[in-house]
Amino acid sequence: MRLMRGLATGLGGLLLILVALAVIGLGLRWLQVRFFYEPLGGERSEQKRAYLDSLAPVDPERAPNFVVVFFDDLGWGDLSSYGSQLIRTPRIDRAAAEGLRMTDFYSGSPVCTPSRAALLTGRYPVRSHTHNHVFFGESSPIATLRRIFGLGNELPRDEVLLPEVLGAAGYATGMIGKWHLGGIPGHLPNDFGFDSYYGVHTSNDMQPLHVYRNDGIELRDETPRINMGAFRDEDSDVEMKGVDQRTLTRRYTDEAIRFVEENRDRPFFLYFAHTFPHVPHFADPEHVGESPGGIYGDVVEDLDRSTGALLDAIERLGLAGDTLVLITSDNGADYNGSPGFLRGRKGKVLEGGQKVPMIAHWPGHVTPGRVSDAMAMNIDLFPTLLSLAGVPLPTDRVVDGRDLSRLLTAPGEEASPHELLFYFPVIGGSVPAAVRSARFKLLASTGDTGRDKASLTDVHRDQENHNLIRRFPEEGARLSEALAAFSAELVDNPRGWR
Amino acid sequence: MRLMRGLATGLGGLLLILVALAVIGLGLRWLQVRFFYEPLGGERSEQKRAYLDSLAPVDPERAPNFVVVFFDDLGWGDLSSYGSQLIRTPRIDRAAAEGLRMTDFYSGSPVCTPSRAALLTGRYPVRSHTHNHVFFGESSPIATLRRIFGLGNELPRDEVLLPEVLGAAGYATGMIGKWHLGGIPGHLPNDFGFDSYYGVHTSNDMQPLHVYRNDGIELRDETPRINMGAFRDEDSDVEMKGVDQRTLTRRYTDEAIRFVEENRDRPFFLYFAHTFPHVPHFADPEHVGESPGGIYGDVVEDLDRSTGALLDAIERLGLAGDTLVLITSDNGADYNGSPGFLRGRKGKVLEGGQKVPMIAHWPGHVTPGRVSDAMAMNIDLFPTLLSLAGVPLPTDRVVDGRDLSRLLTAPGEEASPHELLFYFPVIGGSVPAAVRSARFKLLASTGDTGRDKASLTDVHRDQENHNLIRRFPEEGARLSEALAAFSAELVDNPRGWR
Repeated sequence: MRLMRGLATGLGGLLLILVALAVIGLGLRWLQVRFFYEPLGGERSEQKRAYLDSLAPVDPERAPNFVVVFFDDLGWGDLSSYGSQLIRTPRIDRAAAEGLRMTDFYSGSPVCTPSRAALLTGRYPVRSHTHNHVFFGESSPIATLRRIFGLGNELPRDEVLLPEVLGAAGYATGMIGKWHLGGIPGHLPNDFGFDSYYGVHTSNDMQPLHVYRNDGIELRDETPRINMGAFRDEDSDVEMKGVDQRTLTRRYTDEAIRFVEENRDRPFFLYFAHTFPHVPHFADPEHVGESPGGIYGDVVEDLDRSTGALLDAIERLGLAGDTLVLITSDNGADYNGSPGFLRGRKGKVLEGGQKVPMIAHWPGHVTPGRVSDAMAMNIDLFPTLLSLAGVPLPTDRVVDGRDLSRLLTAPGEEASPHELLFYFPVIGGSVPAAVRSARFKLLASTGDTGRDKASLTDVHRDQENHNLIRRFPEEGARLSEALAAFSAELVDNPRGWR
Repeated sequence: MRLMRGLATGLGGLLLILVALAVIGLGLRWLQVRFFYEPLGGERSEQKRAYLDSLAPVDPERAPNFVVVFFDDLGWGDLSSYGSQLIRTPRIDRAAAEGLRMTDFYSGSPVCTPSRAALLTGRYPVRSHTHNHVFFGESSPIATLRRIFGLGNELPRDEVLLPEVLGAAGYATGMIGKWHLGGIPGHLPNDFGFDSYYGVHTSNDMQPLHVYRNDGIELRDETPRINMGAFRDEDSDVEMKGVDQRTLTRRYTDEAIRFVEENRDRPFFLYFAHTFPHVPHFADPEHVGESPGGIYGDVVEDLDRSTGALLDAIERLGLAGDTLVLITSDNGADYNGSPGFLRGRKGKVLEGGQKVPMIAHWPGHVTPGRVSDAMAMNIDLFPTLLSLAGVPLPTDRVVDGRDLSRLLTAPGEEASPHELLFYFPVIGGSVPAAVRSARFKLLASTGDTGRDKASLTDVHRDQENHNLIRRFPEEGARLSEALAAFSAELVDNPRGWR
């Protein structure tokens, strides 16, 4: 009995001590983060400034306009032009028919925040320290926890962003829609080179979802706090106050058209980052219930109408031949979107997690009706747009993306500028978990396939099911070495400073 | 301090008491199972005997032979005739071209044991109390744990099996391959009506994997115990002793051909349940490395050669026109097989978990080159074969399957005999988690899709991505009610006694 009691005291005591130590440690770290928090980003601020200052203005008569229409969680199989049999997207399909449709285009990450960082910086997410899942709204305790654990919750100030470069070269730069790259002063869209901004800071399942115009709140979200988490796949009876999500796509679209109208006489860059089809789903009341694809289809068909209205405005203003419009998505399908026939979904380094639609529309420059299976990634937009504008790349840092301008505009130049593309996982994404060449993909041991060994798959003949590593040992070894070499490089120099 | 110490004692003491109670309870239950275990199956033994005794012998000149080739974990997309671009299955494809290929055929469960029970009894797995995951080998502690928790580890004796019925009606009945319906005396293949048996009791990732001939061990597996678990997706350097898995398909095939030769002069039923392509993968050394589909492809191409050799033997013996050969699989693709373009895999109630290839070959009876999208399930084999043999069904119990004989043999009769088919989950499978009609599938809230609400999907126009429940509320309600009604019926009378 005495032994038992001693044992019980010992066990209970140990438990208490461990809990107490953890509480004290976290408390100290919390105090540090709360009062002395210093976001990443001082390292290369000077070089960044020098680079931007060095840029000469573009020739306004020759520099093309750029519009990037960026959907949120739209899957590879969610457009009619990519095989959907339920969702009707006639306007986007028409843009595809009038331009280039890419079948092997990837987002820079299988989730939101890192993919957006990749697109705007031209670099793999680890370079901008955005490689761990997504940023959280400032009112969420997870934002603080992220900072406590060193994951960061805002884009470092010394990253060079596409709008900063194009702005310095004389472009009008506008952003509409979802930012998701930080919510504190100094790390907002206007702080990274956008002349104008209209939109929301986070995903639409985070609260509150204020609508900002530049640094001020234009529509204050006063919807009571509810569980708007990832498991909401349908419209619901939530009474929204202040911000009615059903109106977001329409508001964004009006702003986008206004931006184009206002800047018709000078080169412009519009980054139009939609809130949908991310969950929860709210469709325009005027069309809700029309899509054969259910509420998800309604939301995507709203996006199609939005894209059509914007293309119409560009056409009406006589700007079509001067404007490259790129239409893509930030990652693969969520559980209620369609990855087409690909394996995996949002969050996975499988093809369904990162392969997304990409349509390039630019009458007179992009030959109509082309389809390309050359591999490319949204990190390529940065060097491609700079190349088309005639602006040099920064030299103090690695830009992982490649210039797609010839692939887009020269029908004979079908090859990908990439020999290899790397896939970074959502957790532990400081090194890549997979790499692909034109034909093969090597996946390191990963929970995503359920394998405990690396696998080599034939990207175009199989959906990452059958492991060919023993059949093609040399190709397996080559990709394996490339993965290891790049990982080592990233461990040494994650931010890619030169 | 005294408070802390008291708290520590209290916490530790509570923990000790809970652990002690759990140990005592489990110990008592273990003793009960160890010394007084009574498998399910006494309830309807008399009725079963009376039914089997009542059967008249079939006319040996007119009764067709039946061969069921049953693969293990072969996915919907793993045969060339079902779209594989890597695996070559010319012999099975030829059988498909000479017969009927079904695109909407389902296994009775998304895992092994319940699917086998469904096929052999013609009933949903819950009827035979095989609805909780799979049976384990007798030397595994999980077998005992299953019994302790009332899940059973062997098929109840009062189930009526296809070989018992056909045997009572004068058929020669043989089984070759994997049983997986129990490993104790009274519950083995010969106890359930098979005149002859050659094969293994469990999956090939369970040890030991003795090869039995009837009740005796013919090849004793003396391979040292290793982790042969589900995470083995490739051939390995394991030194197998006694049973070399690389020879299994060939041994099975020789036995199958011998069975057909020996029974050429009377009606026969052969249940040929292959071990592969279940993991771990071991291919015939004579052909290993040949398939463009890697080791998985090698294993499937072995199965194709096996099927070809058996069909050749039937042809050579002049029995082709008298023999209905059915080729199918026990569940959808595992992580390394291909579900084709379907969502989900083995273990899920999504289409990829249960939709499997089904080819019916019977020259002169099944019109060549037909493809059918009528929905059917392996529970239909029992009533179909009985119907073709002219043997009545038992009347004391529900048979959930339907007679497919007209669908198979009458080209005008394309409709499914099922108005609805139900899907049972692997855990908690006492009630169904999904139901489909010709067009729609209703999935109850399930982790399989990540939804927290029921979803209604259009089976042929979408891969269970887009929830149409608000667009088709009546159809949703109808299927929801059917699911609830059948669930209530099963709770009242799980075994389906009449």
